[in-house]
Order: sequence, then structure tokens, then C-alpha cells
Amino acid sequence: MSADSLSVLPTPSLLVDQQLMAANIQRMNQQLEQLGAPLRPHLKTCKNIEIARAMLAGHPGGCTVSTLAEADYFFEHGIDDVLYAVGIAPGKLAAVADRIKAGMKLSIILDQEATAEAVVEAARHHDCRFQVLLEIDADGARAGFVPDEPELLNAAMKLQNGGVDVAGVMVHAGGSYACLSHEAIKAMAETERQSAVKAAEHLRSQGLDCPVISVGSTPTALRAGTLVGVTEVRAGVYVFQDLVMAGLGVCREKDIAVSVLTEVIGHRKSRGEVLIDAGWMALSRDRGTASQDRDRGYGLVRDSDGTDLGEIIVRATNQEHGIVGLADGSALNLADFPIGRRLRVLPNHACATAGQHSGYWLTNPIDAPRKLKRCHGW
Amino acid sequence: MSADSLSVLPTPSLLVDQQLMAANIQRMNQQLEQLGAPLRPHLKTCKNIEIARAMLAGHPGGCTVSTLAEADYFFEHGIDDVLYAVGIAPGKLAAVADRIKAGMKLSIILDQEATAEAVVEAARHHDCRFQVLLEIDADGARAGFVPDEPELLNAAMKLQNGGVDVAGVMVHAGGSYACLSHEAIKAMAETERQSAVKAAEHLRSQGLDCPVISVGSTPTALRAGTLVGVTEVRAGVYVFQDLVMAGLGVCREKDIAVSVLTEVIGHRKSRGEVLIDAGWMALSRDRGTASQDRDRGYGLVRDSDGTDLGEIIVRATNQEHGIVGLADGSALNLADFPIGRRLRVLPNHACATAGQHSGYWLTNPIDAPRKLKRCHGW
Repeated sequence: MSADSLSVLPTPSLLVDQQLMAANIQRMNQQLEQLGAPLRPHLKTCKNIEIARAMLAGHPGGCTVSTLAEADYFFEHGIDDVLYAVGIAPGKLAAVADRIKAGMKLSIILDQEATAEAVVEAARHHDCRFQVLLEIDADGARAGFVPDEPELLNAAMKLQNGGVDVAGVMVHAGGSYACLSHEAIKAMAETERQSAVKAAEHLRSQGLDCPVISVGSTPTALRAGTLVGVTEVRAGVYVFQDLVMAGLGVCREKDIAVSVLTEVIGHRKSRGEVLIDAGWMALSRDRGTASQDRDRGYGLVRDSDGTDLGEIIVRATNQEHGIVGLADGSALNLADFPIGRRLRVLPNHACATAGQHSGYWLTNPIDAPRKLKRCHGW
Repeated sequence: MSADSLSVLPTPSLLVDQQLMAANIQRMNQQLEQLGAPLRPHLKTCKNIEIARAMLAGHPGGCTVSTLAEADYFFEHGIDDVLYAVGIAPGKLAAVADRIKAGMKLSIILDQEATAEAVVEAARHHDCRFQVLLEIDADGARAGFVPDEPELLNAAMKLQNGGVDVAGVMVHAGGSYACLSHEAIKAMAETERQSAVKAAEHLRSQGLDCPVISVGSTPTALRAGTLVGVTEVRAGVYVFQDLVMAGLGVCREKDIAVSVLTEVIGHRKSRGEVLIDAGWMALSRDRGTASQDRDRGYGLVRDSDGTDLGEIIVRATNQEHGIVGLADGSALNLADFPIGRRLRVLPNHACATAGQHSGYWLTNPIDAPRKLKRCHGW
């Protein structure tokens, strides 16, 4: 996109640098090719079909989603193999059955015996063959069966005996987001892999097929040393990367492909701060870097073309206002930030910031502004 | 809405209790009637025309918005007097001129001499008569001319001499959100009023008409002791209220009219916590109560019909998962929260939570589910 285009786009707007995105996709593909595991990309970050197709190229074609709205959107655009990777709510089983009957190859996950019972009941009620992955807990961070406890096998047997396909196991090591070193992330990746493989072996030893062993997160996928036994990797943030990922060391700041275009609307002279027209509605309230070594407030500020301006951050936000200043608390030279100057803000968390927008403006190397839509809601 | 309806709506969904909303609207109307100032409701909270009409009833008919997308949406639905209450970005002046030419009575605000110069230039370039309110700083919280400094008069004169209408002054005492007592909010309301009135008197003494004196926020509007001199009050959150407002004492928790309907999807037995299908995408990342006496995490949990369940909060969130537990850290009795049970979550900040959704499901007293749409974006 030419500098002229960046000066006429509405603000705030979400930008995607296509060259950086392509490099991020290539890097993940190379890593997984080396380790011999295909990708089932998580599309909750991009929520757009063109970007999804770029992520899927060279992989089997299945995707991961976080909402049924995403499942519908991607199915309408030709992706029929969809893993809905949030523990299924019994209240959604009728909707899942509708989609399976419409031809979607939709898999669901669960980590509770009670949910397994609800799925069995729904399978009978809707006369529908559900495909289930059993979620395994690797790190105590959120969800999953504890592999050694009897509930896992109980649930699997209830499903199988109730006419539900136990397609396999899945693990998400969300704890990798709190790791402080490359080595810790690599170790977490191995924990994630082993948890999944051992759970699958346990189920197989009891006579269940359990063909799918699904693991992943962007940090563990990029740092894994081996993926032996794994049949698919899930990751989504890698397509854009963000400041949290940079803080974890799994990308560089200059790899971040998504940003918010904004304009200077005011000066706070007494504080050496600048007001911009991007607040939490445009940036999100995500403060993911607050717990990292370098707290980037609500985002790191760059020139409108992406040029590094140093440690300038969005210190605070209101609904449609951002307050920009130096990260060390000293005063900005306001003469460098005249009213009307355009800037871009790199996000703490790509999923959260992108989630605030209805679409992306593509930059680098598009000269004519073109907007990609995102799907939205549940 | 019947209990049956609450059991079949998709989750997560945004609910609005119509009786509570009507009571909130009535309370604000009574307060302003007593003080003799009309309302120019801020529609950035509701972003819906039906709710806007309920807020506008009995008032002059003008509204306040935080984006040009809101201005367009409400104009399309018949509201033509619109104050866009974010310091205007020079890059938006062409869009503002287009709307004025289309018949919208659109006012803008500014607090910089440089912006005044840009408005004068745009007025000439687009041959458009802009209506400007000068933003005044009452509390150092965000934006506004400092009343005693020469920039205010300089900007006003530049505008007037450049063929731009200086319609008046506006103040938003955002600092009221940090007040710790009724008395402090009342004092802040008086500071807000005096700042606006004094600035207008100063401008009038220099020969400017300055007919509009616009002040407001939900806390200051509800606590003001006098509004002498004020010509209009702006407030928006009051229509729903939220936990931050309850924490400030300007409403009760049982007045909160907006909530997120969610379903239990998992148990974390070792921690006495419950997983729900509402994460930060449905609740927002807003942590507005974190700095108040009672930190409510990502929201306060109620039964699906709104019944008080005590101090149960959403402790943590991922994109589509919420982790629910007792506020004091002790373990929940998980038997009380079976898989599939529905709950609702009261939000920290109504604007932020509602901003995550495309619409509202109306409850109390509607028996048949009906959804109101929200406008979105910029």
C-alpha cells in the first residue's frame, strides 16, 4: 500500500502486512515439515477465508475454530473439516447435529463424563453420529481430563458404547504463554506431546481406535523439538504474531503483521503525551504484556508505514481515545507528533485486537486499498 | 422472557432486562428534570435505535456518539442532531463535511489550536459550515483546553474568523470514574459544571455567542447537586448500568440491565472452579473493578434468571472460556453447577461488554425471543 493509501484510509483501521504474514506462514510450515506433522490451523485469529486459505496451503485442509459462527463461515467458503475446539456445551449439541446433517465434518471436544453422557443422549435424540476428541490436561492451565484419573476412560467408553466416534485426543498447552524462556517453552511442547500420546496409548490399550492426536499452540508449535506420534498441530496466532509472542521470544517485533492505523488528535502538553483516535474499542482491553518483562501498555506505537519509533506505547485507553507516551514515563517531543499525523499500533494480542474489527485493510504490496471481512459472533 | 427461552437461546448471548432498563432511564430523567437540564444521551453504550428512542423520550432529540458509524446509523434511523464527542481527527473532516451536506446536524469537538486551523481549512476546502464545541479540561483525566490558557480563546477566534460556528463548550469529567465517595462524585460534578460555565463566560465576554454548555458522565449526572448554566447533559452507561457504576455507588447491582448468558461446560475439580462458554470475546477484557473496593474479575455471576448467587465471579478468561469461582478464592460446590447449567454474567463495563456483541436479546417481560441489533465499527 502506498503512503498515500495509508493517509486516506479511515481511522482506526486494522492493517495486515501481507509480506510479513506470508513469512510467518512459511516459518510455521517449515517447522512442521521438519518435524513431520501437518497443521490444522486455528482460524479464530484471522476469521477470514483468504487468510485461512493461505494458512491451509500444503496441509490436509482441516481447520480449527472457536465458535460455531466460524464453523459456518468457513464451511460456506468450502472448508468442510472443522474442529470446534472449545469444550462442547450441551445446549449446542442440536446446532452441532444440524451442521453435521448439512454435510460439515464437524468434530467436537469434551473433558467431562457428564458431557459424554449428554453427547450420547443427543446422538440418540438427533440420530446423529458425533465425532469427539477427548481433551487432555497437560499443564493445569484450563481444561482437560487428567490422564491418570478414571474419568477419561469412563467417558471414552460411554461415548463408544453410545454410538459416538471417539476420534482421538487433543491437548492445548495454554501454560506455554507463561513460559519465560525458549527452553521452558520447548519443555512445555514436549509435555504437551507426551500428554497427548500417552492418553491415546492408554485409550488404544483399552480397545479404542483413537486415530487423532492433536496438539498445539503457537509457542509450542514453533519451539517443539519433536512431534513423534502427533497427527496434527493446531496454531493460529502465528499468522500475525503479536507483542505477547515477541515477549515470549517466539517471534520478533518486526514479524508482527497486524496493526491498527490511527491518527493523532490531541496533545497533553503538561504530560508529554499524545492522544490518538484508537481506544480500547479499536485496540482491545488486552494487557497480555503486563505480566511480561516489557509491559507495552495497550500496544507499541510505530510510524504509519511500520518504521520503528522506539519505546513509545499506548499508556491508557478509553473507548475511542488512546493516550500515547514513552514507555519509561518521560515526555515525548510533541513537535514530532503533530495533530493529524498517522501512526500504527502493534497489538498485545492479535486475536483480541482483530476481534474488535469487522475486517482488514491489506498493505504491502497492495497499492489500491482492499478490505477483507472477518466473521463475528457465535 | 420465560425460563424456557433462556434455556434455548444460543450462548454466549447478550441479554437486556427491559424493566431494569426502563427504571434506569426513568431515574436519570427524574434527576435531570429536578435539576432543569435536558439530556443529549450518549449512544455509544447501546448502539441501537430502539434503546436510543427510549433514552431520547422527553428530551430535545439530539444525541451523542463516539464514532461516525454510530452517527450514520442513528441518522439513518431518524436522529439528525448528532454530537460526535471525540476530538476530531483532521483526516475525518472530509467525512464530516459529507454528512453535513447530507443533512445531518453534526457537531464536532476539538481542544487544539492546530485542529482549529485544520477545521478552518477544511471549511474552506469543502465549502462547509462546521459546528464546533470546544472541549474543556475539568480534571486532567484526558483531554480539553485548560480554561486559563490562551489557546482556548485563540482557537475560538481562529474558528470564528474562519467561518466556523463556535457552538459552545463541552466537558467530560472522566475523573469521576475514580472517585471514592458520593461526596467526591458530587464535587466532581460541580467542578465539571463550573469549568464549562466559566469557559463559556470567558468566551462570551470576548464576543462569542457560545450558546451550548454541555457536560456529563453517568456518575456526575446522577450525583450533581446543581446544573445551573448547563444547557445539556451527556450520559450513556446509565441506561444499562454496570459493576463499575455499582462500585461507585451510583447504582445498585440489582439495577444492572445488561448481562451475558452462558453455559457451564466444565469442572476444575482440584480448584473448585467451573468453566463457562463465555470468555473475553463475550465479556470483554475490561477489568474496571480491579481498582475498586470489590474486584469482580471479569464479571459477577448470577443465575440465568438473574437471581443473586453471592460472590461468584469470573476469575479468568481465554478467548471463549471463562473460569468461574468464589471471589474469596474458596472452592465452589461443583454439584450446584452441573454441566449444561445456564448462568448470566453482569459486566464490569457495559460499553465494553456490549461492544463484543452484534445485538441484544430482550428479556423481562418478553416471552418470545427478539433480538435488537447493534451498530459496529467506525
